[in-house]
Amino acid sequence: MDGVTDWITDVTVSLFTQSLFTVKSGHFCYHLIHDSGKSQKKMECQKPDVKPVLYSFFRSSSCWRVRIALDFKEIDYEYKTCEWFYEEGQKRAEYLKLNPMGEVPTLIIDGNTLTQSLPIIEYLEETRPDKPLLPKDPVLRAKARALTEIINSGIQPLQNIRVEKKSGDSTWAKFWIEKGFTGLERALQETAGRFSMGDSISLPDVYLVPQVYRAKRVNVDMSKFPLISRIDSALSEVDAFKSAHALRQPDCPMKERLSS
Amino acid sequence: MDGVTDWITDVTVSLFTQSLFTVKSGHFCYHLIHDSGKSQKKMECQKPDVKPVLYSFFRSSSCWRVRIALDFKEIDYEYKTCEWFYEEGQKRAEYLKLNPMGEVPTLIIDGNTLTQSLPIIEYLEETRPDKPLLPKDPVLRAKARALTEIINSGIQPLQNIRVEKKSGDSTWAKFWIEKGFTGLERALQETAGRFSMGDSISLPDVYLVPQVYRAKRVNVDMSKFPLISRIDSALSEVDAFKSAHALRQPDCPMKERLSS
Repeated sequence: MDGVTDWITDVTVSLFTQSLFTVKSGHFCYHLIHDSGKSQKKMECQKPDVKPVLYSFFRSSSCWRVRIALDFKEIDYEYKTCEWFYEEGQKRAEYLKLNPMGEVPTLIIDGNTLTQSLPIIEYLEETRPDKPLLPKDPVLRAKARALTEIINSGIQPLQNIRVEKKSGDSTWAKFWIEKGFTGLERALQETAGRFSMGDSISLPDVYLVPQVYRAKRVNVDMSKFPLISRIDSALSEVDAFKSAHALRQPDCPMKERLSS
Repeated sequence: MDGVTDWITDVTVSLFTQSLFTVKSGHFCYHLIHDSGKSQKKMECQKPDVKPVLYSFFRSSSCWRVRIALDFKEIDYEYKTCEWFYEEGQKRAEYLKLNPMGEVPTLIIDGNTLTQSLPIIEYLEETRPDKPLLPKDPVLRAKARALTEIINSGIQPLQNIRVEKKSGDSTWAKFWIEKGFTGLERALQETAGRFSMGDSISLPDVYLVPQVYRAKRVNVDMSKFPLISRIDSALSEVDAFKSAHALRQPDCPMKERLSS
């Protein structure tokens, strides 16, 4: 991050007093430049020549989603493992400054620290629209986001390992995934082609793959969900979904690693 | 809905064969017209002179969010109570055609059936941008959405009454709300002014108010969260937040109703 910070200071320090924003941010460069109305400088700041950094854990489905989006949009990034992120201590105290929930993923990009998978992907979509993950039509966008929400707020939070542990019920994750997949399978019947929304890859596909992986790990009978299974299988052939796979990440133990 | 359907048929039936969309939809009018490139007709279809209909349950926090967004954007709508929505039977079977998860809210708007609170509000934001709930700057949008996600996927799904029942733990909801509010309080220190994002009302405010209401119902000690409490209190003075309150809805029992 030091490279980014130095560069920012050069370009923007003189603009500091012009800020109209009431929102406080440690990463004021972007906002100040944006606020000054100098769009050329804004662009410079928006895409500094520094690789984005992703704090990631290989098996976290939220990190997995962000990796798919980055790979799909062909954004090169540095992978930062953080196996330590659940433990208390100095590293965690420092990490909390980046991510107030103390969770992964965190993405440092364009001189800004972004958290939470959905807002990160919406940000990538807004700033790197070339390979879109959302349709242009507002109704279709709402449909794509609704499929996404079935997983994002309807399934994933409930089947999280911490939550299952707290419940003390070893069938907890399986129960909630099956319940959610029943609705998702029904919803996909309205929208699916080869993928979740017709024949183009879109946001719900990014969410579907890590969720199916977890479903299989907790022994959900996927034959009950033929459409979800078919889409998952089609996505497994797509490059970005291959490279972003949990078992192809640097922090995945060698014995579990996928060979290709 | 019959009025809308008739009108749609008149305008669009001749365009049917021109569709390039692979996404199937019962509400094909919008997409076909859009696809035909006749932008004037698209606009006509996008905003038919029919009041939006919201399927709502007064105490559901997801419905509450949509009510705040509709009221904030001054969109008049018809309120459809659906106390029956958890029960099996004919009504529910019909409702599943509108909402594949069988949940509330569902919003019928512009001739389309939309589900899930976040996608609905993003749709309102995209089609009715006049009173925005998201900043223009992509970084600030990501920050606003990240605060929103702390509640949307980090707290609300876990503290849901169905989930608490399933856990068999009467302190379940309290536990997850306190855990989530600890992170939210920390995150708000970076962004808050009078409201969650500076001094303008934005998306996370829409999520905060129903979540605080539920926190109080399960006896969360709100004195531990002074910033959340202060923002909640400021929002309680705002018209849209008053009119959208759970205890001011037509399906709220009279004995619980707020008088003003």
